Amino acid sequence: MKSQLEEILNKVHKGKLSPKDALQTLKDYPYQDLNFAKIDHQREVMKGLPEIIYGPGKTDSQIVSIAQEIIKKGSNLLITKVEKPSYEKIRKKIPRVLYNPQAKAIYLKQKKPPQGKGKIMVMTAGTSDIPVAEEAYVTADILGNEVEKIYDVGVAGLHRVLGEYEKIQQARVIIVVAGMEGALPSVVAGLAKIPIIAVPTSVGYGASFKGIAALLAMLNSCPGGVAVVNIDNGFGAAYLASLINHL
Amino acid sequence: MKSQLEEILNKVHKGKLSPKDALQTLKDYPYQDLNFAKIDHQREVMKGLPEIIYGPGKTDSQIVSIAQEIIKKGSNLLITKVEKPSYEKIRKKIPRVLYNPQAKAIYLKQKKPPQGKGKIMVMTAGTSDIPVAEEAYVTADILGNEVEKIYDVGVAGLHRVLGEYEKIQQARVIIVVAGMEGALPSVVAGLAKIPIIAVPTSVGYGASFKGIAALLAMLNSCPGGVAVVNIDNGFGAAYLASLINHL
Amino acid sequence: MKSQLEEILNKVHKGKLSPKDALQTLKDYPYQDLNFAKIDHQREVMKGLPEIIYGPGKTDSQIVSIAQEIIKKGSNLLITKVEKPSYEKIRKKIPRVLYNPQAKAIYLKQKKPPQGKGKIMVMTAGTSDIPVAEEAYVTADILGNEVEKIYDVGVAGLHRVLGEYEKIQQARVIIVVAGMEGALPSVVAGLAKIPIIAVPTSVGYGASFKGIAALLAMLNSCPGGVAVVNIDNGFGAAYLASLINHL
Amino acid sequence: MKSQLEEILNKVHKGKLSPKDALQTLKDYPYQDLNFAKIDHQREVMKGLPEIIYGPGKTDSQIVSIAQEIIKKGSNLLITKVEKPSYEKIRKKIPRVLYNPQAKAIYLKQKKPPQGKGKIMVMTAGTSDIPVAEEAYVTADILGNEVEKIYDVGVAGLHRVLGEYEKIQQARVIIVVAGMEGALPSVVAGLAKIPIIAVPTSVGYGASFKGIAALLAMLNSCPGGVAVVNIDNGFGAAYLASLINHL
Amino acid sequence: MKSQLEEILNKVHKGKLSPKDALQTLKDYPYQDLNFAKIDHQREVMKGLPEIIYGPGKTDSQIVSIAQEIIKKGSNLLITKVEKPSYEKIRKKIPRVLYNPQAKAIYLKQKKPPQGKGKIMVMTAGTSDIPVAEEAYVTADILGNEVEKIYDVGVAGLHRVLGEYEKIQQARVIIVVAGMEGALPSVVAGLAKIPIIAVPTSVGYGASFKGIAALLAMLNSCPGGVAVVNIDNGFGAAYLASLINHL
Amino acid sequence: MKSQLEEILNKVHKGKLSPKDALQTLKDYPYQDLNFAKIDHQREVMKGLPEIIYGPGKTDSQIVSIAQEIIKKGSNLLITKVEKPSYEKIRKKIPRVLYNPQAKAIYLKQKKPPQGKGKIMVMTAGTSDIPVAEEAYVTADILGNEVEKIYDVGVAGLHRVLGEYEKIQQARVIIVVAGMEGALPSVVAGLAKIPIIAVPTSVGYGASFKGIAALLAMLNSCPGGVAVVNIDNGFGAAYLASLINHL
Amino acid sequence: MKSQLEEILNKVHKGKLSPKDALQTLKDYPYQDLNFAKIDHQREVMKGLPEIIYGPGKTDSQIVSIAQEIIKKGSNLLITKVEKPSYEKIRKKIPRVLYNPQAKAIYLKQKKPPQGKGKIMVMTAGTSDIPVAEEAYVTADILGNEVEKIYDVGVAGLHRVLGEYEKIQQARVIIVVAGMEGALPSVVAGLAKIPIIAVPTSVGYGASFKGIAALLAMLNSCPGGVAVVNIDNGFGAAYLASLINHL
Amino acid sequence: MKSQLEEILNKVHKGKLSPKDALQTLKDYPYQDLNFAKIDHQREVMKGLPEIIYGPGKTDSQIVSIAQEIIKKGSNLLITKVEKPSYEKIRKKIPRVLYNPQAKAIYLKQKKPPQGKGKIMVMTAGTSDIPVAEEAYVTADILGNEVEKIYDVGVAGLHRVLGEYEKIQQARVIIVVAGMEGALPSVVAGLAKIPIIAVPTSVGYGASFKGIAALLAMLNSCPGGVAVVNIDNGFGAAYLASLINHL
Repeated sequence: MKSQLEEILNKVHKGKLSPKDALQTLKDYPYQDLNFAKIDHQREVMKGLPEIIYGPGKTDSQIVSIAQEIIKKGSNLLITKVEKPSYEKIRKKIPRVLYNPQAKAIYLKQKKPPQGKGKIMVMTAGTSDIPVAEEAYVTADILGNEVEKIYDVGVAGLHRVLGEYEKIQQARVIIVVAGMEGALPSVVAGLAKIPIIAVPTSVGYGASFKGIAALLAMLNSCPGGVAVVNIDNGFGAAYLASLINHL
Repeated sequence: MKSQLEEILNKVHKGKLSPKDALQTLKDYPYQDLNFAKIDHQREVMKGLPEIIYGPGKTDSQIVSIAQEIIKKGSNLLITKVEKPSYEKIRKKIPRVLYNPQAKAIYLKQKKPPQGKGKIMVMTAGTSDIPVAEEAYVTADILGNEVEKIYDVGVAGLHRVLGEYEKIQQARVIIVVAGMEGALPSVVAGLAKIPIIAVPTSVGYGASFKGIAALLAMLNSCPGGVAVVNIDNGFGAAYLASLINHL
Repeated sequence: MKSQLEEILNKVHKGKLSPKDALQTLKDYPYQDLNFAKIDHQREVMKGLPEIIYGPGKTDSQIVSIAQEIIKKGSNLLITKVEKPSYEKIRKKIPRVLYNPQAKAIYLKQKKPPQGKGKIMVMTAGTSDIPVAEEAYVTADILGNEVEKIYDVGVAGLHRVLGEYEKIQQARVIIVVAGMEGALPSVVAGLAKIPIIAVPTSVGYGASFKGIAALLAMLNSCPGGVAVVNIDNGFGAAYLASLINHL
Repeated sequence: MKSQLEEILNKVHKGKLSPKDALQTLKDYPYQDLNFAKIDHQREVMKGLPEIIYGPGKTDSQIVSIAQEIIKKGSNLLITKVEKPSYEKIRKKIPRVLYNPQAKAIYLKQKKPPQGKGKIMVMTAGTSDIPVAEEAYVTADILGNEVEKIYDVGVAGLHRVLGEYEKIQQARVIIVVAGMEGALPSVVAGLAKIPIIAVPTSVGYGASFKGIAALLAMLNSCPGGVAVVNIDNGFGAAYLASLINHL
Repeated sequence: MKSQLEEILNKVHKGKLSPKDALQTLKDYPYQDLNFAKIDHQREVMKGLPEIIYGPGKTDSQIVSIAQEIIKKGSNLLITKVEKPSYEKIRKKIPRVLYNPQAKAIYLKQKKPPQGKGKIMVMTAGTSDIPVAEEAYVTADILGNEVEKIYDVGVAGLHRVLGEYEKIQQARVIIVVAGMEGALPSVVAGLAKIPIIAVPTSVGYGASFKGIAALLAMLNSCPGGVAVVNIDNGFGAAYLASLINHL
Repeated sequence: MKSQLEEILNKVHKGKLSPKDALQTLKDYPYQDLNFAKIDHQREVMKGLPEIIYGPGKTDSQIVSIAQEIIKKGSNLLITKVEKPSYEKIRKKIPRVLYNPQAKAIYLKQKKPPQGKGKIMVMTAGTSDIPVAEEAYVTADILGNEVEKIYDVGVAGLHRVLGEYEKIQQARVIIVVAGMEGALPSVVAGLAKIPIIAVPTSVGYGASFKGIAALLAMLNSCPGGVAVVNIDNGFGAAYLASLINHL
Repeated sequence: MKSQLEEILNKVHKGKLSPKDALQTLKDYPYQDLNFAKIDHQREVMKGLPEIIYGPGKTDSQIVSIAQEIIKKGSNLLITKVEKPSYEKIRKKIPRVLYNPQAKAIYLKQKKPPQGKGKIMVMTAGTSDIPVAEEAYVTADILGNEVEKIYDVGVAGLHRVLGEYEKIQQARVIIVVAGMEGALPSVVAGLAKIPIIAVPTSVGYGASFKGIAALLAMLNSCPGGVAVVNIDNGFGAAYLASLINHL
Repeated sequence: MKSQLEEILNKVHKGKLSPKDALQTLKDYPYQDLNFAKIDHQREVMKGLPEIIYGPGKTDSQIVSIAQEIIKKGSNLLITKVEKPSYEKIRKKIPRVLYNPQAKAIYLKQKKPPQGKGKIMVMTAGTSDIPVAEEAYVTADILGNEVEKIYDVGVAGLHRVLGEYEKIQQARVIIVVAGMEGALPSVVAGLAKIPIIAVPTSVGYGASFKGIAALLAMLNSCPGGVAVVNIDNGFGAAYLASLINHL
């Protein structure tokens, strides 16, 4: 956009365009382009960050063509929630991409992203919550964060959470992933005065209502310092955690 | 805003500002101001239209001061969902305002708004739906529409709806207000191939769930041509109806 | 049971058992057996009625063995909600059974059931509601009722319902089957002062929420005379209609 | 309406109106009037039946004027869900009306309605369900039915329901009113092969969700012969029961 | 129908039928036929409009026979929500039909429908919303509207919406299709004072609850001028938009 | 009942009644009376237990008359969920009754109930949960249990729960009362292998949905040994705990 | 842990460590280890109890390796909710394991667990509830309980429940499994003053909402003594029942 | 605790207690006390931070006594969600406390808390959202943060949000408070790559369902970087924002 605006100003400067006509042009000038410029500028600052593709609802060939363009630009790449058969088709076209089968995420690191200041901890209550935690892990990693995982430390065996007390204190942000009764974020928030991002998972059956029970529990978390993202949204939790970790 | 932008361009024109510096200034220039200008311009075109205040969550004195400013500008005024005691306090400060007690709406017409092309019909299924219908009526009226009311023609007595067949055909848009089973919009949509805006009301008890039953019924309306606004949102229905009627 | 009780009384009569001991025996006597006797007696009166099997959650071989026992007793048979492949397996074992593929019901009439006094009308709003209506039809038929069907007369085309005005007046009970906005029972109840049993169906998408929209609409039906059964419960509607029709 | 149509035909007969012009007139003739005539005729047949006013959402003076008109016509009168203070204001204007304070119903019998054939039984699970049952009682009574009440026979004390076994068998229709877990209709339906109209009440707390628990239980009632009306809708249940009882 | 009514009037005119007997005949005359005539007449006016078949719940052969009849009449044809395998079977019988695979719509234009006055804009927030938007597109097109599409302009990248500012101003009606948080209609309604029909989609996961999140957001849209149709109901939105565009 | 049955048997014994006629009489004999007898007998065994009145939906005078009858019989008395003004009216009639203002329970111990074997622990997560816990306390106490209270030990301060570790081990049953995220029962169940009865409370706001969040969390409790009662149902929890403690 | 702590104390004793330094060490000492020790000790007491694996969300090979480790330790083994194909793969690796196909549970008893004091009764309302009941059966059995089953005694045929009156009285705890209207626990609780654990099942259709109807009914159960576990959670019910039975 | 532990160690040091006996004492030593020490220690570090009282469910006198104790300790004080009459009673006892009537928060700053590194921005969509925003403001302020407010910048007037573009870029964390459709967080997240904490409010009517619409919209927010707290939970948002701002 700069070039266009620059051109107008140059014309005014050179007397080829009257201020009045320039005004008219600018008034009709799509303001979003200015906006776009700003955001682009900001993007420039964030170099190294991945371009992220949300997989569902896109065909394999759509994903391939978007991904190829991103790779050509030299950006890092993250594609979330892609089933394995899709990955295999995509890999045939772009053999360099890697796949985290638990996270169901395709990724490619072409350059080192700017690193966050501390450590992001990813915790799960159970083993069934691991896929969502892995999505958070892959995302946080490619966004330039040191990530540590503590899996399967649900409140049923409190000693397991408490056994990680020291580690918990060392994190800068904690992502807590839990299904069923979703109690882990409350317990962790009671132990650590650090920002906690709670991710409810659709793990459970019956009255877990595909994650609603955990979601509501987390929203009602009594100790301060907990915020919640969408059910199974490991990506969103990691994205926010990375923003915090890069402050 | 123009003045500021004009000034910059004049400076460039007069050589007092280099195109590069101007570019810098403009890059940081709040783009929303451009936007604002446009919208303001648009407002100008819409002269005669009321400024609308949503009453709930505002104190009487807040309402009075906003209203006084609007009246000073010469605009028409509409304040929705104001209880009678509030109205009485407001009237002491602004004696000219009128009140529709069923609609719970305060209004003041200071100039004639641009008139819509046809007639807006406001129908209710029962007598208890009338307050919401009156809110629609007051709104449509002050927005510059001919409005006709057909009240209490629920599907329990089909002959009553059918008895209004001719009138229904003459409308340009129909607002159908109904609580309980919310069936009237479907029936009216079957009779008239005109845009129908359905307003579910919180009228009913038990499994009406304060309007959810009617809302769902209306969203699932089988005949084409029906769209739905929020429960008890007579204002919103009339606002949209007026936009359609002014096309 | 009679035999046991008879025996006790005979013993008392013959002086082989004191009234006091008999009393003790009877006090511990399972009261439900008396109950059972009564219910059995009642069954005797209802000869000709079918024994009904709810298909889901039963294996084909379970269904076959229950059905064979029923057939052996000479009873009529109705098996509801059985998919076609199951029917085909069952038919190999019990070749006489018939199948209504829309209703997904297996049935066998071995004797004529006592006939109801009037006509049961089964109406549907749309063609997609027909399977549920057919379940009602099959059930009402085997329970000994004259049944007439009026399908696809939704409120979108009101003239279609009105066109059946005369027929509607001739029914003794009406079963109205509708999905989506579930408005038909209200309209029919406005036309006919006869008992109406409304059956919401899971037909629809989005905010029909698999029949909840229709269910709520029907529960809130404004005209009197409407009661509702479970979503897709054509059987239950017909069973109740038959009880009414046999009064 | 007849007079108008008669007039047209007479004119055609006398040659004052050509068939073609008559056709034109009739084509535009509001068809609903024909409909109205039919319904009116039907009304004539139903003489003695009450006109019913749903109280909520109507002002006391609105109720008074509607009621006065009904009384003038000689009809029986039933006004449902009217709070006591309203009743007291209404009684000042219409001293003859009676009030059932539990049912919150105003009524006036001016002529004997046609009597139903059997007995309607009104049962409640608990004492808190009685107001809804009384609404059913008042309604069924004024609609011309013999009504018997069996209150407070919840499934917690099964012997109380069973103790009414004989009475239950003698009813023609049973209205079962229950809040909380709403289990009574299922139990009664297991005991009596008669039409059962289940009325969920908003009695309960917590997870009764103002009657939803009872409503869902009743809709899922396993024994056949149960249909459900809206939560707290004693009127609707009695209206339907009366229709059945008058068949 | 006219013929029958004409005949009666002719008989009365000729003295072959007394006014009284004619009255009797007419009183029993199915009023809906009159109604039907009117609607037919109205249909006549709307020549060129398609007959629309809602695909789900109909067998392929049912669709074929209905479609063949429509085509025989010379009408335009639209069949919504048909999966590709069904389309392929249908095409074998009716080779002329076309298929929009994203919209899952079969259509056939045999004559030019009456054209709407302005342009209908179809916008989507994301790429996954496109199938619903395409259903709207196909429908609006066959109903005789100029349609422009703006896809993938969600509020996450506000500059993309703002970049379409000028185009948005040129529309007569806007259909906004969005899943997830459903924020786009509110933003668009803030930019354009034109009727906006919001279509929530079932796109999203977790707490999107198959479109409920978007639906609720849209119903609560703060800027005036937005009405909502059922989740994924691209057809309904376009049908209403077309009605508005033809006013 | 015995007398009637005794009489019949005596008649048979004395030859005044044939076994066949006796059989007939007994077949028609209301079986519920036998049932009643059994239950009465069982009651006899349970002497000392209170008769319990659920307060809501009963008038003060109804409560007084039921309570007076119970007191006359010498039973212990418990009336739940009675507001203070009601209590004060009731006390005027029955001065001996006591009142727990937090539990909103009226009670009167006239005789010592049979004592449970161990200790019932009543825990709350917060201070706002205390009223429900007190209802549990009052109930468990009058049912003959040693009760210990541990209040305000929510998971936000895990050290507070852990600080009660020894006490927790000494209980025979634990009632855990919690609102908001309802996580405490899961944590306690992880610490103690004893039966735990979880009581969700309506404490909280927003997405606690009056106890639904806590209810769902508790139903999904991951560690074994937890069962749930209705929201705010302190009575029900204590009643079950007492049954367990008396085993 | 003891060794570490012992070492510190020995050092203090021997004067190698000052009390002050020991204090510092202990202050930083992970408290959870103490906790862990306690819990381990408790485990020791519970020898004979099975280690339980929740199957869903684990791969077959994960299950195999966990199971092999458990078997090596000599513990009893229970794996819940495992589909048959998974079982068959697992059996190839661990041929000794047994499978209950209805319960979908794999189990292996290597030593006799400590036996409960009384009998656990498992009742179902219908035949479709049996799989959940079987999960409860398998669990209760391997936890060391005498278990009796009473299946298919729903309230539709009350005589069937009543026919089990004597057996019911002999149980120490009753697990009642029911879908649809979930009325059985209320009825059983009315008959037996024993702890009752209600398990709602997802059996039913339409407004059963996959067990919500039954769940709500059970939570609102009017007779005392009923607590509820998650929908379809036969395991959880049996685990709690076993805790109660071992008191 | 230290004193007790110190004493034990001193005794061991002095040979008054054998290591073995000390071990025994420590093994039974409530491990939570160690835990408590740590947390206390941590508290010590956080000096200056307020002690926070959640007002609802506490009596005025309870609040007074807790507050007095906190004030005595020299801590800052924050009491949330206290109605004005309560405040007035509390002020009589503790005259120094201040009150924010919009936030309904009582507070008292006795010492300067440690300051956060950047600025927390608090934005609202409408004026009715201000009370919740003020709760966030009061909380963030007393927790030691520079806070800037931008109120009433809903998406209906996009230019207002865009007009704050520069300010938004300067924040370190943004709290976005919105009711109704809850779209503002998505728009802000699109503009600023900073952590955003979204607070849904119960502002709205009908299908806003007391904040559910906004809550769901926020959970489904498409742009990354948004997490959500409970409806109306201004406190929780500010607490988390402060944790982030103090990193």
